[in-house]
Amino acid sequence: MNNRPFDLLNDAIDKEVLVVLKGNNQVRGTLKAFDVHMNLHLENASQLVDGEMKTKYGKVMVRGDSVVMISPQI
Amino acid sequence: MNNRPFDLLNDAIDKEVLVVLKGNNQVRGTLKAFDVHMNLHLENASQLVDGEMKTKYGKVMVRGDSVVMISPQI
Amino acid sequence: MNNRPFDLLNDAIDKEVLVVLKGNNQVRGTLKAFDVHMNLHLENASQLVDGEMKTKYGKVMVRGDSVVMISPQI
Amino acid sequence: MNNRPFDLLNDAIDKEVLVVLKGNNQVRGTLKAFDVHMNLHLENASQLVDGEMKTKYGKVMVRGDSVVMISPQI
Amino acid sequence: MNNRPFDLLNDAIDKEVLVVLKGNNQVRGTLKAFDVHMNLHLENASQLVDGEMKTKYGKVMVRGDSVVMISPQI
Amino acid sequence: MNNRPFDLLNDAIDKEVLVVLKGNNQVRGTLKAFDVHMNLHLENASQLVDGEMKTKYGKVMVRGDSVVMISPQI
Amino acid sequence: MNNRPFDLLNDAIDKEVLVVLKGNNQVRGTLKAFDVHMNLHLENASQLVDGEMKTKYGKVMVRGDSVVMISPQI
Repeated sequence: MNNRPFDLLNDAIDKEVLVVLKGNNQVRGTLKAFDVHMNLHLENASQLVDGEMKTKYGKVMVRGDSVVMISPQI
Repeated sequence: MNNRPFDLLNDAIDKEVLVVLKGNNQVRGTLKAFDVHMNLHLENASQLVDGEMKTKYGKVMVRGDSVVMISPQI
Repeated sequence: MNNRPFDLLNDAIDKEVLVVLKGNNQVRGTLKAFDVHMNLHLENASQLVDGEMKTKYGKVMVRGDSVVMISPQI
Repeated sequence: MNNRPFDLLNDAIDKEVLVVLKGNNQVRGTLKAFDVHMNLHLENASQLVDGEMKTKYGKVMVRGDSVVMISPQI
Repeated sequence: MNNRPFDLLNDAIDKEVLVVLKGNNQVRGTLKAFDVHMNLHLENASQLVDGEMKTKYGKVMVRGDSVVMISPQI
Repeated sequence: MNNRPFDLLNDAIDKEVLVVLKGNNQVRGTLKAFDVHMNLHLENASQLVDGEMKTKYGKVMVRGDSVVMISPQI
Repeated sequence: MNNRPFDLLNDAIDKEVLVVLKGNNQVRGTLKAFDVHMNLHLENASQLVDGEMKTKYGKVMVRGDSVVMISPQI
């Protein structure tokens, strides 16, 4: 059992995550790293707007300040 | 009787909570963990928009900065 | 006479308060606890939108960051 | 002559003030207390929307974060 | 020559300034005091909306957090 | 070669800069001073809305919190 | 393998990056410097709105507070 919310991110390293951003945008990709501000490093990332894929990124750094939710896709 | 607002979250561990987010979105799920920033770890989570279920998540980490209210569903 | 704004909340413990939130939403309920960030623990709470009751909550924790005004209903 | 902006609030204790809030709402009432975050305790307060009185409150605590301007009505 | 932006405010004490606020509102008045958060004390102040005078205030304290720009009217 | 983003501002002192503000407003003027919060002192400044000049200011202090981008016009 | 999100920016120095800003604006350019607040110094920069190039800048400093995502274009 996890005891802190960040443990959930720790368990998601190298797994696919769905990141909901402010403004209802979403980014999906493989979580490679995160820090205490919830800044994220994703690989094989793509941006979704209203659920549809809009842009393919390779690597992307997401600023924690823009994050609403992060869901590991297991 | 509780003396601090966070005691309410402590009592809600392993129970279902409704989380109202900025922008009138809501997430419902079982509270597994929280921290002092009100970051939350939910399981069996689903997102509601205007009261209707929109997306099912499994595990989800909600960023405290996006939270408006948290209501334990007892 | 009160000397600090938070004294008003202290006097309102166990009394009904009306909380105006950002986005013109309102929550009404019995104040059970608060902290220095203006996080609130309310019981018998209900949410009002444009003055009309929308949702009944039992217990609710309101995040201080979302609060505009708090008015004890005396 | 005042030397710091907060001196203006100090001189306004027990006097009527008009408080302009984010979102063009206004609250009018007698200033009883304030703190360094510009949190305010008002009495005999009423909320104005677009210049017209909308709601009468008795006591109200206004969160400093929501304040745009405070004008003592002398 | 000034070396820090706040020196511009120091030179504007007792002079008229135009203050652009978030949301395209403007306040004009005589600068009497300011602090490090850019909180301002203005006298003979009036609020302008879309360039037209909307409300006359006497004294007003403007919260620094709402300020976009301050222009001394020399 | 610069090593820190603020070095770019240091090199732009006494030169013309274009400042993009939140809300798509822009200010153009000669950079006289800046501080660590990105507060700016501009001279011969003018405000542009949607690329067209709207208002001429003489001196202006721009609050760093409102800044999106600063581009030296070389 | 990277261990911290900022390592991704470190590896992107002197390479082209796409920066997604709040409000769906984008800036593209060569990353020359960044700091811990995610302030960026770009060269040969251009602003894109809805995916189309809108303005060419030479050098530009982007304020970290406005950044949503940064993607190295490799």
